[in-house]
Formats: sequence, structure tokens, C-alpha cells
Amino acid sequence: MLKMQVLEKEARPVLAVDIGGTKIITAIITADGQVLAEACQPTLAGEGVPAVIGRLFSAIDNLLQQNSLKTSHLRGISLAVAGPIDSKRGIVTVSPNMPDWHDVPLREMIRQRYEGETFLVNDASAAALGEHRFGAGRGINDLVLLTLGTGIGGGIIIDGRLYGGAGGAAGEIGHMVIDVNGPACGCGRRGCLEALASGTAVARETIKRLRQGEKSSLAAMVGGRLEDITAEKVGEAARQGDGLAQDVLSRAAKYLGVGMANLINIFNPQMIILGGGMANIGAPLLDPARQVALAQAFPIAAGAVSIVTAELGEAAGIYGAAAFAFGNDRR
Amino acid sequence: MLKMQVLEKEARPVLAVDIGGTKIITAIITADGQVLAEACQPTLAGEGVPAVIGRLFSAIDNLLQQNSLKTSHLRGISLAVAGPIDSKRGIVTVSPNMPDWHDVPLREMIRQRYEGETFLVNDASAAALGEHRFGAGRGINDLVLLTLGTGIGGGIIIDGRLYGGAGGAAGEIGHMVIDVNGPACGCGRRGCLEALASGTAVARETIKRLRQGEKSSLAAMVGGRLEDITAEKVGEAARQGDGLAQDVLSRAAKYLGVGMANLINIFNPQMIILGGGMANIGAPLLDPARQVALAQAFPIAAGAVSIVTAELGEAAGIYGAAAFAFGNDRR
Repeated sequence: MLKMQVLEKEARPVLAVDIGGTKIITAIITADGQVLAEACQPTLAGEGVPAVIGRLFSAIDNLLQQNSLKTSHLRGISLAVAGPIDSKRGIVTVSPNMPDWHDVPLREMIRQRYEGETFLVNDASAAALGEHRFGAGRGINDLVLLTLGTGIGGGIIIDGRLYGGAGGAAGEIGHMVIDVNGPACGCGRRGCLEALASGTAVARETIKRLRQGEKSSLAAMVGGRLEDITAEKVGEAARQGDGLAQDVLSRAAKYLGVGMANLINIFNPQMIILGGGMANIGAPLLDPARQVALAQAFPIAAGAVSIVTAELGEAAGIYGAAAFAFGNDRR
Repeated sequence: MLKMQVLEKEARPVLAVDIGGTKIITAIITADGQVLAEACQPTLAGEGVPAVIGRLFSAIDNLLQQNSLKTSHLRGISLAVAGPIDSKRGIVTVSPNMPDWHDVPLREMIRQRYEGETFLVNDASAAALGEHRFGAGRGINDLVLLTLGTGIGGGIIIDGRLYGGAGGAAGEIGHMVIDVNGPACGCGRRGCLEALASGTAVARETIKRLRQGEKSSLAAMVGGRLEDITAEKVGEAARQGDGLAQDVLSRAAKYLGVGMANLINIFNPQMIILGGGMANIGAPLLDPARQVALAQAFPIAAGAVSIVTAELGEAAGIYGAAAFAFGNDRR
């Protein structure tokens, strides 16, 4: 339990929430990045919007109660969610990991229930801000972050601030088409980076090739249940020398490298940060991706960029949501 | 001849230069965008770097002399050039329209000869800044400009300022790969937007299809000299109902639309400005491109963007070079 006075508004901590496809992380975070309390529960997104909203309310209620906090102790409540956000209206327009979410007025729902200031930000944008303030991107003015997970998200820091664009929906880098004749993407386009290099794409490609009869240690690794194959397992098999796994990853890495070269040519960033579960695969994915990116981009821009892995892990979202509430000013 | 006192430095005009593949435009421009004098001469880029530098010096000398100006009357000299610029060192690293330009220290050459403040900026970045301050993008905080010409250049305005990235090389949007298996690009990659939708790409594709035996009014239009076919002529033929010309343009338009959808998803811009000679083709190119872009991008971002044509024509570069010298602050 936290001992909390009613501080000046600017000095109060933020209740930060990261609503992911599999879990809801909640935390109390101070302006200097101290996590005073943290909790986690399953999202169970398949149960539908009202059920998830109910669990979200419970998660916030519990964290407040367990720490004897009231809304008046807080700077505000700040939510990170996947998908393009309408930040003017505080609406989650669509959310890739929660297929039945369409135009959910999440900010207003939270504001009405808790009667405090409420913030809503895209999860990958939050991760970029989190890494910029507290992680791999500290002191870096111009950076681009990619979250390599089930999907591929993006966040853009320009001149030390999160770049949101006209309506807060900027940064959908996973939905940059790099192969106009490529596989269909969940967003309706073809050949998006996400459709070629996400965890879902890697697993799908591996399963397809196994079903076509290619040999791999992966079949035994999942006891023949091919649908249990994940990008993480493909990474594990690749590290153990599995040829199919290595080939699938090196193809995904090539696409990732092409996408990063695009970003280097467009943004001339100081840094690209790679986060999300797939970044944990490490060398078999990231080394060839880095090589392709640096070989393809204009030398002047390739020479200026560091391509690094994220430091905050899955906490980047809550750190970033908190930072977003504390103010998107240059640090 | 201009009557010019030695004004306070901030109030003095800029001598702006746009060094293009075919011509060098020079102008004297005030902070509020008045063009006090202007001149133009051929670049004759084929004669090599020293010859072009010599003509550049003459062009500046003549403009100063004809208007009885000395460097001390000026805020500075500001140069716009195609290709990625190393803005820290003032070097033109490569320049697509002047193939023998490699690491030319243009800013220092001008500074040494004229002994005043000297600025160097990419031509499409200058065009973006010019359109932002004096053209189609006035009052728009977040915009992306594409110059559709021999190549495809880009310029990015964020929060009312030209975005240069780590070293001033940002904005190479023409070298965003959208078809990873596409045709080779001059930059060494495959399937860059420039390789698919530039004037060069349109002319090349048209000539190729004519040589393969397709019928078109274009062959007669150029008196059988297929190598004289330009994107502008393809546009003219398309407006007159030529089927081949219409098909080539609609394919280029599709690629342009895919590229713009990428930009809309990444930047969530308020505006995309299309400039350069190919933008003059108008409806046969721009209407289908706009349709593809708005249909493919996320609705929240597609709904926020206006896709418009540039207003300043080929003067955008000198206006932008001048604006760059006057200071890249928010207006």
C-alpha cells in the first residue's frame, strides 16, 4: 500500500494502463519514471468489448484500492491501446488484437467513471515515448520505434516529442506497403510490412511450408500441433540450427530491412529501436535485417542511424502512457 | 536595378539559387516572399562539376552586378540542390540529375567566394518549405510534399518546420520501396516509388510497350522518335483518349496512390502536396492516385488529409531556399 498525500497536480503519479491483446497491465508511475505499483490480468479479448471494459474497470479499481488511492491523488489515468487512435475524440477506431473494437469511446468511458483527466495513446507510440524518456532512446531527439509482435506497430519521436500528426494516428509503420503484390494484410492492403515480417507472418509462413512437406525440428517441438508454432518457437529452432526456421526468419529479416531502409531514407533518424516479442529472437532476425537496411539506405542517412533493441520490454507501454500524461514536451 | 541600403541583417533579402538538372534559377527574395529580381540559365550538367560550378558563380555574380548588390546587402546566399545533402558539412553527397556530383562541398565553395552566410538544402525540402510559407501549404502544420519529375523528391513539414532529421537528409520519399521485386532504381534498390511512378518511369514504360508493338497515338506525336517520349507527352495523349497512355498513367497512379497511403499511415498529415512537372498532367494521373491513397490508408488518417497540387510551380525551390535562410522556425 502506498502512503499518498494529495500532491500538487504536476507532482502526482499517473495510473498507466496498457491494454494488449493478451493482457492488461496497470501501474502507478511517477514523473521521474518510478513504478510505485503494478498489476497484470488477462484481456480475454475474445469475450467482447463490454467484458474487456469490465475487466479494465476492475483492474483500475483494484490498483486504486490496494494502494489506498483516489483519483484526486493522481495526475490522471492514461491508456495505451493498439490500433489507430482518434486522439481528438479519444476513440479507439479499430484495434488489430481485439477484432470487435470499432470506434470505442474509451477515453470518455474512463473519464466518466473516474472523474479525472484521462489520456489515450496508441501502444506503439507509447512504447516510443517510454523508450525515449526512460529506455534505449534517452537523449535521442529523432527516433523511430517498431514493435515486432503479433502485428507491427510504430512510434515516431521528432525533436524530442511524440509525433502524432493531424489527429494522433501517425506512426502506423507496420502498414507501409513494401510489396505491392504481396500477401493480404488485416488492414485490407497487400504486402504491408506487418503482413511480411510480423510474428503472425513468420508463424503462418512456417506452418505453410511444413504443410507443403518441408522438414524441420519445429514439427516435433510442437508435438505435431503445427497451429502451436509461434515466431518465438521459430526463433528457438533457428538458434538450434533448423534450416527451415533460419530461412523463414531470414526472409522476414529481409523485409524488415527493406522497411527500415525506407524509414532511414524518409526520417534520417538518429536511432531505430526494435521492440516487441519478436525482437527477443535476436541475431537470427536482427542481424540480417540491420545489414539489409544499412546496405539499401542512402549512405549519408545509413551512417547516422543506430539500430538497437528496446530496453523496457513489455513495460514500455505503461512507461510511455505515463510520459504521455505528464506532457509531450521536449526533454 | 535595385536600390538597396545596408539593412539590419534580419531585414536583408536572400539570394536564393535552385540548381536543377536542366536550369539554374537565381533570385533575390525578401523575408515576406517578394521576388525583387530573378534570372535563369541552363545547367548543362553533362559538362561536369567544375563547369556547372563556374556557371553557378557567373549566375550569382550577374544577379548581384545587375542589381548593384554586394554580399553585405544580403541575409545570405541559399542553395537548393537535388539529392541527399549532408547539411552539417554543407556537402551535396550525390545528385540524381547530375551523375558526376559526389561529395561536392558546395556550401564552403560559395562561402569562400562570397564571404557571407551560406545555406544548402535539398530541392524538394526547399519546395516543401516554399509551399508551406508562400504556397498551397500556408497555415498547415503537418504536411508532406512530393515533387513528381524526372525523379521523385520529398519534403516534410512537421509542426510548421522543415524536418531534416539527424543530418538534414530526411525526406527521400521517392526512395521508399513499395514493390520489393520491382524494377531497379538509380539508388541501387528495387521498386522504389521513383522507379515506378516518376516521369522517367512513365516514359520508359511507354517506350517499352510501344517497342513491344502496342498501338498508340504517341508514336506519331513524336514522329516515330520514341526516345522523345516524355511523361508530359504521355499525359497529353491520355487526355486525348489514347488507350496506352491512359493505361501507363493509371498504373503509375496506382503506385503513387500506394506510396501516398504509406505516407498517410505513417504521418497522418493534414496535407499532401504534389508538385513537379508530372503534377501538371492533372486528372489522368492525380485522380486515380488520390482514390487509391484514400481507399487504402486507415480511414481516420485518410479522412484528415487533403491531397492538393503545388501552387508555386518551379519557383517553389527558390522560395523555399530563401525561407530556409530566413530561419526554419515555426510560422
